Amino acid sequence: MNTQAAGSAHTPEATPLERFYAVIPAGGVGTRLWPLSRAAAPKFLHDLTNSGSTLLRATYDRLEPLAHERILMVTGEAHKEAVCRQLPEVKDTDLVLESEPKDSAAAIGLAAAILYQRDPEIIMGSFAADQVISPDTAFQAAVREAIYTAATGKIVTIGIKPTHPSTGFGYIRTGEPLAVDGAPSAHAVVEFVEKPSLAVAEEYLASGQYNWNAGMFVAPVALLLKHFSANEPELYAGLVKIAQAWDTPERDVVMAAIWPSLPKIAIDYAVAEPAADAGDVAVIPGTFSWDDVGDFAAIGRLNSASEVDDVTVLGEGARVFTESASGIVVSDTKRVIALIGIQDVVIVDTPDALLVTTTAHAQRVKAAVDHLKAKGETDVL
Amino acid sequence: MNTQAAGSAHTPEATPLERFYAVIPAGGVGTRLWPLSRAAAPKFLHDLTNSGSTLLRATYDRLEPLAHERILMVTGEAHKEAVCRQLPEVKDTDLVLESEPKDSAAAIGLAAAILYQRDPEIIMGSFAADQVISPDTAFQAAVREAIYTAATGKIVTIGIKPTHPSTGFGYIRTGEPLAVDGAPSAHAVVEFVEKPSLAVAEEYLASGQYNWNAGMFVAPVALLLKHFSANEPELYAGLVKIAQAWDTPERDVVMAAIWPSLPKIAIDYAVAEPAADAGDVAVIPGTFSWDDVGDFAAIGRLNSASEVDDVTVLGEGARVFTESASGIVVSDTKRVIALIGIQDVVIVDTPDALLVTTTAHAQRVKAAVDHLKAKGETDVL
Repeated sequence: MNTQAAGSAHTPEATPLERFYAVIPAGGVGTRLWPLSRAAAPKFLHDLTNSGSTLLRATYDRLEPLAHERILMVTGEAHKEAVCRQLPEVKDTDLVLESEPKDSAAAIGLAAAILYQRDPEIIMGSFAADQVISPDTAFQAAVREAIYTAATGKIVTIGIKPTHPSTGFGYIRTGEPLAVDGAPSAHAVVEFVEKPSLAVAEEYLASGQYNWNAGMFVAPVALLLKHFSANEPELYAGLVKIAQAWDTPERDVVMAAIWPSLPKIAIDYAVAEPAADAGDVAVIPGTFSWDDVGDFAAIGRLNSASEVDDVTVLGEGARVFTESASGIVVSDTKRVIALIGIQDVVIVDTPDALLVTTTAHAQRVKAAVDHLKAKGETDVL
Repeated sequence: MNTQAAGSAHTPEATPLERFYAVIPAGGVGTRLWPLSRAAAPKFLHDLTNSGSTLLRATYDRLEPLAHERILMVTGEAHKEAVCRQLPEVKDTDLVLESEPKDSAAAIGLAAAILYQRDPEIIMGSFAADQVISPDTAFQAAVREAIYTAATGKIVTIGIKPTHPSTGFGYIRTGEPLAVDGAPSAHAVVEFVEKPSLAVAEEYLASGQYNWNAGMFVAPVALLLKHFSANEPELYAGLVKIAQAWDTPERDVVMAAIWPSLPKIAIDYAVAEPAADAGDVAVIPGTFSWDDVGDFAAIGRLNSASEVDDVTVLGEGARVFTESASGIVVSDTKRVIALIGIQDVVIVDTPDALLVTTTAHAQRVKAAVDHLKAKGETDVL
């Protein structure tokens, strides 16, 4: 077990597991979960599974047995207080605050650059703060295999076995098995592919050669930064300057000078796809169940136990009364909610905004939010 | 024009119109309009037509050109303040407060008995506080005919021409025309019939002989009280005792002693049906449009002008956003309400309770309220 403090260098004989540092980028608002999830209260700060934990807390707890408090949070300055309330054990040195959102490449790249400054041998794993995974043990087994595989000089993505021909996720095409000690299920990655059409998604599903790309990966920070340097030199240069100043009194000045000018780009384009082309990417197919809670229909799937008649109810102290109704109610108020004779409805009741839609239209919530934004109704976004 | 003060007797030569006194019983909660309408804020205190007036205010204003402030309000003590706020011109002598609800026979009978004490020649007209009528002029013409007919010694109901085979209203079977000066459309009433089955309602509609009973009637108070005395002697005796004490210092003591013990009975059973059997009832068929706003589907019909796309919106300052939606939104809060891909929905948004149903299920709201009552959720009823 590694109990070394952040900031010191590893001795060369550190095992792959001892080199592991988890990174949790907690940024996305989760627009398709509006009005529950919004700028001031993003998705990762909600308990969307009635588990008693927010998604962020659950993500941290899932990584802790592997990372032993070596977990770096990357989040917006606006969420600092909420994140620290959720995760009181996070040390100041493990909190990276963005002054403004700069997409995933900058967020994850900064984490990699800071960790590299502290210890160039670190193998980092990046895990979104707002996914639902179970059981934790299967997830941890996959991450362990990913760490061993990363130690051989790979960027290792953890793939999700598709359960249906989704057109909402990117896919990972799996290649030959790799012979890695401690990682019996490691395979090469042939390529990442963008969200496909339904017909193509059906082919992918039937072929058995594809996994969903859930954006989870494990890699040596040195290798990650090599790909940043090769593919996004401007971004790389800025991140290195910030990282070099990070643990010094210059941090704020340098961050303020550089961060706002960094390009906004997704990590997939900046690193994952070019690295796959270079043959540097491997995949561990996950055997756990996974849900990105992409819309309110997902909340229905994930909470089917807490039903009032045929209505799934989410929310502490919810007062829901139903008659011949089915669907999902998310109650963020203590109001009485009565449903009569309405099917597959989605109701999200918050103090200043109410959404009423159907499970079939749950994906269109994002468009409604864009519409509200265009109309200037930003007080509820 | 009659400008005589309440409490004094008419001279014998008063015309029928000069003898008129309007009575507005304002009592029903309007349970099928929950959660907008409720014990603390009954239906008659709402503006359900986006007219800028509550139903009560509109009822008063519709009667004022006929009654010239000779309008007696009968309401619950709990609603005194709200009624006086709506109708600041109502004099204390025109305000009859019930300490507890005793159904329509006691409420209307007490009004008749009080008016009789003040002037036995009064022709009173009773009009519910929560109906929607237009145009006012057609209504007033019908009431004028009813007053002339009442002056011949009749209880005169104002019938509503059926627009569909409703099973939710009682019907009035029309008899021979009556030859009444000033009331060319007056007819005898053969009988009142209870809410019929659909098949019977269809026969009624086809026959052209039936009108809906909207509970509006005009009659000499002396004749009304004669029927009370004959059909409900116990109720009659109690009402007379209260009325005799009403304009004296004994009012409160006598009211407290007698009112709670009075039988609860509808005016239809106590007076209208027996009087029809005695040949004492006439009808003026109304030529105005009429709606009792019995449920939220009615609110959709009555407010189709104020639509956001295909959604009818009721409520000052409502912030409703729709996409591929239809139905009715009643907004009693300033919350943003977003509807996506949902049809014929009824949403009633109030500070402490939310109803979501469909126009087809609007009649079932009463059952839901009964259910909430049974569950003890009385804070929102």
